[in-house]
Amino acid sequence: MFNFTRLAATSALGGLSSVVLKKQDVLNTLTLHAADNKELCYVGDIIKRRVGFPQPTACCKPLRFKDFIVSYDSKNRIPNWVYEHLQYDKLFKDDPCDRRIKVDRTQCASNEDKERPKFTPDCRIHGYHRADAKDYCDTEYEMGLMAQPENYPYDQESFCECFTMTNIVPQVPGFNCGPWFDLECYVREKLVRENKGVYVCSGPLFLPCAEDDRTVKQFDVLGDGEVSVPTHFFKVIVIETQDGQLELESYMMPNCTPEEGEEVKLEDFLTPLCQIEHHSGLIFFPEKKCFSSNNRRRGARLHAL
Amino acid sequence: MFNFTRLAATSALGGLSSVVLKKQDVLNTLTLHAADNKELCYVGDIIKRRVGFPQPTACCKPLRFKDFIVSYDSKNRIPNWVYEHLQYDKLFKDDPCDRRIKVDRTQCASNEDKERPKFTPDCRIHGYHRADAKDYCDTEYEMGLMAQPENYPYDQESFCECFTMTNIVPQVPGFNCGPWFDLECYVREKLVRENKGVYVCSGPLFLPCAEDDRTVKQFDVLGDGEVSVPTHFFKVIVIETQDGQLELESYMMPNCTPEEGEEVKLEDFLTPLCQIEHHSGLIFFPEKKCFSSNNRRRGARLHAL
Repeated sequence: MFNFTRLAATSALGGLSSVVLKKQDVLNTLTLHAADNKELCYVGDIIKRRVGFPQPTACCKPLRFKDFIVSYDSKNRIPNWVYEHLQYDKLFKDDPCDRRIKVDRTQCASNEDKERPKFTPDCRIHGYHRADAKDYCDTEYEMGLMAQPENYPYDQESFCECFTMTNIVPQVPGFNCGPWFDLECYVREKLVRENKGVYVCSGPLFLPCAEDDRTVKQFDVLGDGEVSVPTHFFKVIVIETQDGQLELESYMMPNCTPEEGEEVKLEDFLTPLCQIEHHSGLIFFPEKKCFSSNNRRRGARLHAL
Repeated sequence: MFNFTRLAATSALGGLSSVVLKKQDVLNTLTLHAADNKELCYVGDIIKRRVGFPQPTACCKPLRFKDFIVSYDSKNRIPNWVYEHLQYDKLFKDDPCDRRIKVDRTQCASNEDKERPKFTPDCRIHGYHRADAKDYCDTEYEMGLMAQPENYPYDQESFCECFTMTNIVPQVPGFNCGPWFDLECYVREKLVRENKGVYVCSGPLFLPCAEDDRTVKQFDVLGDGEVSVPTHFFKVIVIETQDGQLELESYMMPNCTPEEGEEVKLEDFLTPLCQIEHHSGLIFFPEKKCFSSNNRRRGARLHAL
């Protein structure tokens, strides 16, 4: 632990005292400071003006896409969260006079393999912090899409935008096609069909685990881009009912394949929002909007933090 | 890897089709939407107004202290960076008429042990993401201070503010009192003495390492607050010379004890800024200010990224 002995030792300086030079022009310097800082009293303002604050790429202004929005984690090269607003009339066709046509998948297919989509890097992210499809090559992980192209079946632009690398997180294959897929279908085919609108926030989590007598965080890192593989994923869903009420459902799922033959029940993954907030470092509704929680009604096992 | 087969499978819906309900009031809903969203075309604006974006505690607005500024990482419960502006006339006394008196260390001492400072949690951080001195108890780690109280020997408020938990990161004891201490002394006793001013940005890094045939990130997590222990630390230093030029020195150091008897040379830790930017997820000078780099002059081994 830190104590004052270490502080006091500073004046002794150890081997560094030899490099100390005499200050020759204190008065001049003081005069200069006074003039320089006339209107800049606070140290933060001085630092900001003179050298600027360090900025994570695109952290403070989420990345705009046509139909969803992404907060990017430039340290882990994956999104912090991706937010969508899904509505019945964008997803489904009831009216025979509706002239919209289904998207043409080939327009965002890879040149080499028409069965696969073409993933595009996001040029708004600095090269140091940008993920690339190459990072996933020769790994066991799939490119998990947060905003799902199937949510935009009648919008070519939105459909293709889902394949931007800032919307993508490494997922274990059996998870991507298993519980995560089931949850996406549940949102689209039940919640969106039954309600006025659904706000869906999806993202990755890094949970600690016990190892011997310590607690550690450990996760794989992919490719030259050093893309982090999360241990878990969340979906925080705000349902706007037909009468305009807002209801909440929140899920947390481990990034792993269910055991063979195991039946996946979405209810088992319902998780109190506060747990997701604790692990993600995020507060989801900072303006403290009031929701009725669907979690309890849906039979969630509520764990205390 | 992701392919279109998975996308196309969505319409089949698996076991979820039984929950699909009929849409009964499409026309009404469409009318409501049109009225609701008259002035809100972009999906991001709709989401922001209706439910609000998730926010990391205090990420986008750095935390103000009297003499330094902190960007907080609410996921890891440590700072992203701490920025100080150090000047000769705040640190040293040349003038015998200078009436300033040295800080009274007992004013920020612990009640139980006067030899130890009292560490205070930062109430601006949400309880879910706040570190506490208790998290460090019964661990091998020391509370490493980013802004150093010894930089404020004549300012009681700034001196005490350094013991706020948002200024603190877990450090290995032999590192805290070893290379990191030497670097702090070098900044204060050489750079600050010789120059007009010094801007010092300090913070943690999490570097990946090879394990078997994979690349992983692994680090300890402390206490109920789940405070992450970084693998490395950086200092990015902008030196404002007496003639107003800006020069850069940047260091990266592993969070470990040097081997017994090993001589620590600060030059060995000089690291190109781009490497620190790559690992931290930060761009240090987003407005592309021009500096001459001191690294090469000081004999840094420059590694290509």
